Amino acid sequence: MAFFRHPQALVETDDIGEGTRVWAFSHVMNGATIGRDCNIGEHCFVEKGAVLGNNVTVKNQVSIWAGVRIDEGAFIGPNASLTNDLRPRSRQANWTLRETHIGQGATIGANATIVCGISIGSFAFVGAGAVVTGNVRAHALVYGNPARLHGFVCRCAEPLTFTGARGVCAACHRQYHKDPQGYVHDA
Amino acid sequence: MAFFRHPQALVETDDIGEGTRVWAFSHVMNGATIGRDCNIGEHCFVEKGAVLGNNVTVKNQVSIWAGVRIDEGAFIGPNASLTNDLRPRSRQANWTLRETHIGQGATIGANATIVCGISIGSFAFVGAGAVVTGNVRAHALVYGNPARLHGFVCRCAEPLTFTGARGVCAACHRQYHKDPQGYVHDA
Amino acid sequence: MAFFRHPQALVETDDIGEGTRVWAFSHVMNGATIGRDCNIGEHCFVEKGAVLGNNVTVKNQVSIWAGVRIDEGAFIGPNASLTNDLRPRSRQANWTLRETHIGQGATIGANATIVCGISIGSFAFVGAGAVVTGNVRAHALVYGNPARLHGFVCRCAEPLTFTGARGVCAACHRQYHKDPQGYVHDA
Repeated sequence: MAFFRHPQALVETDDIGEGTRVWAFSHVMNGATIGRDCNIGEHCFVEKGAVLGNNVTVKNQVSIWAGVRIDEGAFIGPNASLTNDLRPRSRQANWTLRETHIGQGATIGANATIVCGISIGSFAFVGAGAVVTGNVRAHALVYGNPARLHGFVCRCAEPLTFTGARGVCAACHRQYHKDPQGYVHDA
Repeated sequence: MAFFRHPQALVETDDIGEGTRVWAFSHVMNGATIGRDCNIGEHCFVEKGAVLGNNVTVKNQVSIWAGVRIDEGAFIGPNASLTNDLRPRSRQANWTLRETHIGQGATIGANATIVCGISIGSFAFVGAGAVVTGNVRAHALVYGNPARLHGFVCRCAEPLTFTGARGVCAACHRQYHKDPQGYVHDA
Repeated sequence: MAFFRHPQALVETDDIGEGTRVWAFSHVMNGATIGRDCNIGEHCFVEKGAVLGNNVTVKNQVSIWAGVRIDEGAFIGPNASLTNDLRPRSRQANWTLRETHIGQGATIGANATIVCGISIGSFAFVGAGAVVTGNVRAHALVYGNPARLHGFVCRCAEPLTFTGARGVCAACHRQYHKDPQGYVHDA
């Protein structure tokens, strides 16, 4: 097979792309979908029904549940928590699964918590330890408990500086445009 | 034996009830007490001296220490942290164990932190990412860092609406009574 | 060998001191440095380039990355998160490692998050669930998200009471001195 499995990892899915690596004490269930060139750290769990795109990084001690979709190139920090039940109780047969979507290239910081039913925009940056309870816009920087908007970041994760509607990254000089609704786009 | 142990789990206690399941890479020590029909997720640890009632759900990456008692039907979310030493230092021989009690049917949200020495009331709901530093009343909804009271929830976890002392659940229509001290009881 | 390795632990380094114990489902990489009489809990990960002094305690589900240095006698609580990249994105070849230093005898509480590039002073106490985003002084007590200074603690972790520049621990009677810049020292 063209993916790498540490001898101490359990990988039961066949739907896993070339170049992906799964490290020690992690478990990927049958029915999980994982793209190419992903890196799944140690002590992770990927449940049946979870979907990861290509080039996703998942650091250690993260569980990715059914109903979570992580797009290409996203980064999930260590000990980050995802969920799929807004009002969990033990042994409820008829609970409602709520989906969570992590957009392309987004970052979920270490130990952050993502309440289910929301969408994290592409290239957004959720700070370490944040508790996210609502949708996050593309390129937004959010942190705190509850997480609040504190600015916008570049694809490279450095802060953007705006002059009117025009934003630029001081690090890589990529340019952006902020529309009248406050959403940030490539210029 | 009448409980299920994943081949990659370590279960050393004999005090574990029928129908309980322990999943991969989890470790239940000798001297732990676990009831019937519990579900212990992956990468969990249950220490000697921890006590779980029947029908308890523990999601992934949770450690349950000596001095923690979890009553029937409680739910512990992924990456939630429990503790048993209020002022830990490394290699202190004579530290003081402080007990924590999680009441019947309570929910501890994903990545929440429960400081030791407190009691979480029955059917209380600790939101995801909360840091709980004091007792939580039965049916209370708490969240934030530090966790504050934000209302009350039904056994089914949906919010309760009060008219004077009388509360009702919009979802399941169960009725409750709030006493003059602000505690919520079955009507 | 003079250290203890649980049969389900992976220990690849030779640079590990006498009396140190590594528990189930933990993984210490080749290139990690670990002192004497440490206790590494379950589901931990110690990366190549991480350095732990003597008598360090690491509770369960903690990852210690390259660039993290933990001095003698520090305590890292369960599910605590350390980091080494301030602006992580997936699959960035040229990211910048930022170091983190945990001082002698310090405590990092359960589920706390330590953003990289900072120093935690000796005998400091980071409360459970705190999100630390800046340097912490010796003997400081910090908690919250973001973590703020809320007082000072003794080597024994009990609070210090100051009368002018002179501090004393009510529990063990050890004495301290606060200098004009607000730093606390042994008296």
